[in-house]
Amino acid sequence: MEFTVGQIAHVLGGTVEGDATAAVTGLAKIEEAGPGSLAFLANAKYEPYLYTTGATAVIVSPELILRQPVSPTLIRVTEPYLAFTKLLEFYQQATRTARRGVEQPAFMGESSTIGAGHYRGAFSYIGEGCVLGENVLIFPHAYIGDRVRIGDNSIIHAGAKIYSDTVIGQRCVVKAGAVVGTDGFGFAPQADGSYKAIPQIGNVVLEDDVSIGANATIDCATMGSTVVRQGAKIDNLVQLAHNVEIGRHTVIAAQTGIAGSAKVGDYCVLAGQVGMAGHVSLANKTTVTAQAGIGKTVRQEGQILQGSTAFDFKQNQRAQVVFRRLPELEQRVVNLEKNQPAPEKL
Amino acid sequence: MEFTVGQIAHVLGGTVEGDATAAVTGLAKIEEAGPGSLAFLANAKYEPYLYTTGATAVIVSPELILRQPVSPTLIRVTEPYLAFTKLLEFYQQATRTARRGVEQPAFMGESSTIGAGHYRGAFSYIGEGCVLGENVLIFPHAYIGDRVRIGDNSIIHAGAKIYSDTVIGQRCVVKAGAVVGTDGFGFAPQADGSYKAIPQIGNVVLEDDVSIGANATIDCATMGSTVVRQGAKIDNLVQLAHNVEIGRHTVIAAQTGIAGSAKVGDYCVLAGQVGMAGHVSLANKTTVTAQAGIGKTVRQEGQILQGSTAFDFKQNQRAQVVFRRLPELEQRVVNLEKNQPAPEKL
Amino acid sequence: MEFTVGQIAHVLGGTVEGDATAAVTGLAKIEEAGPGSLAFLANAKYEPYLYTTGATAVIVSPELILRQPVSPTLIRVTEPYLAFTKLLEFYQQATRTARRGVEQPAFMGESSTIGAGHYRGAFSYIGEGCVLGENVLIFPHAYIGDRVRIGDNSIIHAGAKIYSDTVIGQRCVVKAGAVVGTDGFGFAPQADGSYKAIPQIGNVVLEDDVSIGANATIDCATMGSTVVRQGAKIDNLVQLAHNVEIGRHTVIAAQTGIAGSAKVGDYCVLAGQVGMAGHVSLANKTTVTAQAGIGKTVRQEGQILQGSTAFDFKQNQRAQVVFRRLPELEQRVVNLEKNQPAPEKL
Repeated sequence: MEFTVGQIAHVLGGTVEGDATAAVTGLAKIEEAGPGSLAFLANAKYEPYLYTTGATAVIVSPELILRQPVSPTLIRVTEPYLAFTKLLEFYQQATRTARRGVEQPAFMGESSTIGAGHYRGAFSYIGEGCVLGENVLIFPHAYIGDRVRIGDNSIIHAGAKIYSDTVIGQRCVVKAGAVVGTDGFGFAPQADGSYKAIPQIGNVVLEDDVSIGANATIDCATMGSTVVRQGAKIDNLVQLAHNVEIGRHTVIAAQTGIAGSAKVGDYCVLAGQVGMAGHVSLANKTTVTAQAGIGKTVRQEGQILQGSTAFDFKQNQRAQVVFRRLPELEQRVVNLEKNQPAPEKL
Repeated sequence: MEFTVGQIAHVLGGTVEGDATAAVTGLAKIEEAGPGSLAFLANAKYEPYLYTTGATAVIVSPELILRQPVSPTLIRVTEPYLAFTKLLEFYQQATRTARRGVEQPAFMGESSTIGAGHYRGAFSYIGEGCVLGENVLIFPHAYIGDRVRIGDNSIIHAGAKIYSDTVIGQRCVVKAGAVVGTDGFGFAPQADGSYKAIPQIGNVVLEDDVSIGANATIDCATMGSTVVRQGAKIDNLVQLAHNVEIGRHTVIAAQTGIAGSAKVGDYCVLAGQVGMAGHVSLANKTTVTAQAGIGKTVRQEGQILQGSTAFDFKQNQRAQVVFRRLPELEQRVVNLEKNQPAPEKL
Repeated sequence: MEFTVGQIAHVLGGTVEGDATAAVTGLAKIEEAGPGSLAFLANAKYEPYLYTTGATAVIVSPELILRQPVSPTLIRVTEPYLAFTKLLEFYQQATRTARRGVEQPAFMGESSTIGAGHYRGAFSYIGEGCVLGENVLIFPHAYIGDRVRIGDNSIIHAGAKIYSDTVIGQRCVVKAGAVVGTDGFGFAPQADGSYKAIPQIGNVVLEDDVSIGANATIDCATMGSTVVRQGAKIDNLVQLAHNVEIGRHTVIAAQTGIAGSAKVGDYCVLAGQVGMAGHVSLANKTTVTAQAGIGKTVRQEGQILQGSTAFDFKQNQRAQVVFRRLPELEQRVVNLEKNQPAPEKL
């Protein structure tokens, strides 16, 4: 794939400064770009790279005033990052091999249906009673149980497992190896100290525009539904236990675990390796920093929480600073004790 | 599936108060139940829901005295929760599509055998020299290596991988995507700073009634066996390294990791995201709270441990409380220092 | 497989003390070994087991002086552990069923090639435009996307997923269920609070001699490459985000997570459940203890770091000791305050 800078500028509605005939074959970050690459500059912090980059062309803002001569050809457009993102999307569509139709052998139960424009990869498995929409892509080794519903334009990646009765909305992405809807970790203790599995008859509901990361696990509800609401993005290796609810447009980073029946509000951000206890709730717009532990319900919106017994992150950071000098602090208390006036004699 | 309340009461050996002809089509929690649902009330804490629930019927104790009129029909039985669990099991059996026989294409080495009543899903793989018992269910994309033994009534879910020489008991469940018996993380440092893999010739043994969670990983032993003893329940995304031993009826929640050669006693409970160092042991009946780190052997039975360098959880919680006000505590020490009597002049 | 002690000593170039005709059928640790086992003694700490072991034979150093009579036959060689490792390798090769050729059904795109000596397991999938070297083993249910390159003697285990454009060197091992090269967790926040996926057009590069653990996840770069350099060993359930770089001969234990664009130096050791923030770097030869959190760049080589806001591990351990007695420390401050001299009256 090769285009001239002039062709790209034309598509983006931008103006060219420099050699419009220069050839571009790929996209790169401005700090890493070499010959043949097209980069962008949106954040002023990166401007120094403009004068050192090996890129053949750089997309910049019309307002940018050059402080030095530059070697790459410039394309000036009003929103450089947005323009670059469009090129990324175009590049991805052009380079990824589009797959449609059915590769053999693939398995689909006779009572299941799938809409037009679908892909069913070799060794994909679809059980009975499933209803899959249009342009649904089922990659190789994906497993779809019985009575699963998947909306239009959703993608189930290689080796993802969607257990029976799961409901998936439109434009969802379930990445490779994710397990959605398997039985939750519910066991009733018996008189002799052993445990007996409690039947899990609920399901998982992923609303529209949800993304589930690679090798993440989402358990079905004991009864009712484990729910990930519209637009929520769940990263790799995240665990969502039975009956968890994740709010709209909430983002959860890798390796975070949410215990049974916990509820995360809308527009929350949970960083990586966070843990959240069962049956507690997080208010909307809560931010939780990496490795924090949420043990109690948080009712006030918009807080930032930190720490393994999480509380306000600024307070936590101040406490962390003192924690480092605890041995010295203890020694200072010892010194004070030694230096105390002798107790008055009676 | 639709039954009358009277039919259900008859099966459970209970008595009906209200409309015995009301139709029930599903099971639900009392706080979420709507028309057509059957719920139960076992815990007095939930009694208020009895007067507001939308359930068509609720299973209650014979002793329950109503404080208000109720709209659902009541079924009175001596153990409401136990009765409800029986219905859950019945519901699950009735709604889950039972699979038996072999879906094609499936692969099984000629020297392997499987007992009566089995299921081998499409795209399941069984190597050579395996001996699988009766009523063993092997779901699609499951991988079974060579010389694996699996006892009667065990279930290997979709995409689970059971490596060669693994021994699995009766009534075990290995959930989707779990990896059992792969080579452990054993590398010998070389003189040049590189590492060389140490051959791992041991195996994994899962005794009877063990459950392994989705995408959990259990490494084989370097020599000998990594062992999960009878009735232990391991949750999703848990890591058990080479030569680990997990005691009988011990429960380990999601994302916990146990390093090589560590031993967990019987009847222990490890919460989520716990870490345990290599070669240490936990006494029987130890409880470890979420995100704790166990770095040393614990010999006294029955303790509750907390913290990333774990110690007694009550002591830990008191320390956590003071941790939050460390900046103020330090300031109080500064004030004391300022306020000290001047040292006596010599 | 049965050998006499004399035969084994002959192969190892060692001398026999005791019954050279004794039969050995397996390898075991000296503390666990029973009749028919061959064990080794390399570490003086384990010498007491030499006098109690049930092993039929033990490999020991020529220098070892017996303090008591021993029951096993001894094989004396100059490097007992090295000799034993050779036997481990031999044992593993002899007992693991070597697989070559293609098991049916397997899928490979017409434009892909694979070298001599390969294995393609049943239900393995290889897309278009892939170039796989000699003696490459692709186990059942492995998924290889498009344009993937894999060097000679590399092994892709059961159900591992290698996404398009990944480059894998020679002698690499990707264990069961690992996901390499799936889209990173990159989302652009929109004006309405929702998120839009940023196309991820980069790839993953695993250099020679890299090992990736079971169910680990390694995201492709947004642009450019996520790189794991020569000889690095990555354990089970580890998460490496987009554009991460892991240095040569670095070891990362299970369940550790490295956020986007972070860089780990050469010869580092990260223990289990470590978290590392995005865009930070670790100097060469850094050691990070279990469950630590790295939030800032570490420039000085050779440090050992501990704690969820990680700092020097000795300092951390001293602070942890005081942390446990924080309630008492606070009480001592209260006592000091009570005992202060009254402020002087003006």
